[in-house]
Amino acid sequence: MAEQIENIRGESGHGGNIYRLAEKLGIQERKVVDFSASVNPLGVSKQIKAEIRRHLKYLPHYPDPEAKKLRKRLAQYHGINPETILCGNGSTELIYLITRALKPRKVLIPVPTFSEYERAVLTAENKERRAEIEFYILKEKNGFEINPDEFITDLKGERDPSPIAPHSSHSFDMAFLCNPNNPTGRLLRREDVIKIAGAARDLRCYLIVDEAFMDFCPEETIIKYVESNPYLIVLRSMTNFYALAGLRIGYGVFPQDLVERLKGYKEPWTVSSLAQRAAAVAIRDKTYKKETFTLLRQEKRFLEKNIKKLGIEFFPSDTNFYLLKISNADEISDGLQLKGMLVRDCSDFRGLDRTYLRISVKSHKENAILIKELTQIIQKQKTNTENPDSDRINK
Amino acid sequence: MAEQIENIRGESGHGGNIYRLAEKLGIQERKVVDFSASVNPLGVSKQIKAEIRRHLKYLPHYPDPEAKKLRKRLAQYHGINPETILCGNGSTELIYLITRALKPRKVLIPVPTFSEYERAVLTAENKERRAEIEFYILKEKNGFEINPDEFITDLKGERDPSPIAPHSSHSFDMAFLCNPNNPTGRLLRREDVIKIAGAARDLRCYLIVDEAFMDFCPEETIIKYVESNPYLIVLRSMTNFYALAGLRIGYGVFPQDLVERLKGYKEPWTVSSLAQRAAAVAIRDKTYKKETFTLLRQEKRFLEKNIKKLGIEFFPSDTNFYLLKISNADEISDGLQLKGMLVRDCSDFRGLDRTYLRISVKSHKENAILIKELTQIIQKQKTNTENPDSDRINK
Repeated sequence: MAEQIENIRGESGHGGNIYRLAEKLGIQERKVVDFSASVNPLGVSKQIKAEIRRHLKYLPHYPDPEAKKLRKRLAQYHGINPETILCGNGSTELIYLITRALKPRKVLIPVPTFSEYERAVLTAENKERRAEIEFYILKEKNGFEINPDEFITDLKGERDPSPIAPHSSHSFDMAFLCNPNNPTGRLLRREDVIKIAGAARDLRCYLIVDEAFMDFCPEETIIKYVESNPYLIVLRSMTNFYALAGLRIGYGVFPQDLVERLKGYKEPWTVSSLAQRAAAVAIRDKTYKKETFTLLRQEKRFLEKNIKKLGIEFFPSDTNFYLLKISNADEISDGLQLKGMLVRDCSDFRGLDRTYLRISVKSHKENAILIKELTQIIQKQKTNTENPDSDRINK
Repeated sequence: MAEQIENIRGESGHGGNIYRLAEKLGIQERKVVDFSASVNPLGVSKQIKAEIRRHLKYLPHYPDPEAKKLRKRLAQYHGINPETILCGNGSTELIYLITRALKPRKVLIPVPTFSEYERAVLTAENKERRAEIEFYILKEKNGFEINPDEFITDLKGERDPSPIAPHSSHSFDMAFLCNPNNPTGRLLRREDVIKIAGAARDLRCYLIVDEAFMDFCPEETIIKYVESNPYLIVLRSMTNFYALAGLRIGYGVFPQDLVERLKGYKEPWTVSSLAQRAAAVAIRDKTYKKETFTLLRQEKRFLEKNIKKLGIEFFPSDTNFYLLKISNADEISDGLQLKGMLVRDCSDFRGLDRTYLRISVKSHKENAILIKELTQIIQKQKTNTENPDSDRINK
């Protein structure tokens, strides 16, 4: 079993792959309790379900490739110009579109973070031209927080010689910031992001701020600053806050000249008509938002209290998931998987190792089961450590 | 009004854009009768609708990035190996994935055809390396049919000097074939495609056969030949036959080594979980298929008879749409648009001009309205030609 579970890790590379676990355990996919994907525990709102049902008979029509109605709604919602918005098959499509269209030569990525930034840069290159990537290492001792001044110094190339590319002749022309950051859950304050964006503009370096989890702390968005900064891009996702991971919908806000450049590379019809409809309904649903914040407040308190009680180290979170540090994370993950519970093993995050797990905040019932199972696994391990033969004796 | 309609053409670049027409006419999108997108007039099957409804509560889960269950079903359906299949956000995703991963240097495309092949080749290139594209011109006098021997001669570069790139030093490393072809509706017989595929293999040139409309003549597919030809790729779409244009689902069958190469470039989660579910149900629905063939047989007969009666030239079709040739296609398209009926103006197809229109076969009621409106427009034009002042006098 341990080896099989090993394989699941290797194949997935992301949270949320309930399919491979269900396959290995021989259970139905819907029986997997998924703490590895950080989506809203409320699930899909009633309004979205109703809208999709209503729209089924229109599926023979191609989606609007320009997503005009949705962009208008999003623009109203954020108070921005609809012509600066592009919609995507999740924000992931836009990450790849950006690297493909802008063809960066040298990219700065803080790590640990969402792995698709690095992959998008690497797949955009070809034999003739290799993009350089440097990593700004987020340190555990600083709670994985970015130091804005240090980040700007790195962006300027003033922390020389770089240990990774000591002879690099290029300056950075692209940098990524995931805010709040995945998998650490940490938010970089608005004023700090604006400071970094200003420095990026001065350096003519595109700064891509991925706000995929920003709906959980909406007042911290810098989406309105794109208008006044020709080097700033903000990405948003409907996956996490609106629990629409299966539907694929995200959007980005771009400087006007970039919109035109990106359109030249954008594939048509990537956003289904159901996704466009669902998203337009989602952002108007104030009740869902209110209920989400109430539930998260309660459940985060519950989880923090109980994780602490178990003696597991966790990092404060500004969003709906926690990064945990446990020496025997492997065993805990394997133990939970045998119970049909999937957590995010973080060993494949650049800058983390096998001692980290990421868990999302789910419903109270599910969170309580997680704590119960964690307690049992840890207690069993303690007994085994104190009395190494106990397992054999019990048998 | 004429100028506004001009704009719709320029913006769209494809059929099926009911959104821009509805906007210009100030009507609801669902009021547009769309003859420009060639989708099954039966609409989305009951079984698919039911499956999507059942699956709505699972939307918080990410889709299976490997689409394993769907690939298994497709493999059973076609009698092929599931490991040779990749699913995409429509076959369009796969067209772009192929050009991005294989980076062709010189490509042969028969025209007129689906415009995304050319665009995918062009967007895959970058400053350092420009792909050459040559076009095999399908001639109207031959009913826009491909001559396989001539095509193979072109592929071998034996029809020199090429008028487009006389000094080209490369041989072709990629060629596209849309079969049945869009927008001409013509099928190249199976044995001819196999012959071309054999020649392509000998030349080490990838042949991409886009069978997006092959479900309308399923016995002509060459999908099983991929297994024995390392240079053959077959693409399929669920858009047209299953009327799922809005949902985005297609697939491709690839030589085994290419599957691995393409996976290296494939973006995760591009196929929504609803699309995966719908497709798996669709291919099993024998009743829907039977009803489709019955309806199409009847309605094609009806349309052919009446189009002929109107004196409009049309090309025989092996699928669910017709290419029409009418000297005043512009006026006819504009006239129909004013009635809320969208047909595909073909002037932006390389190799066609403003005298071509493409119409899809729809329900009997809709086809009858189309014929009625066409009759009126043509009669009015005749009156105007015979008596140029009649219009003024009538006012």
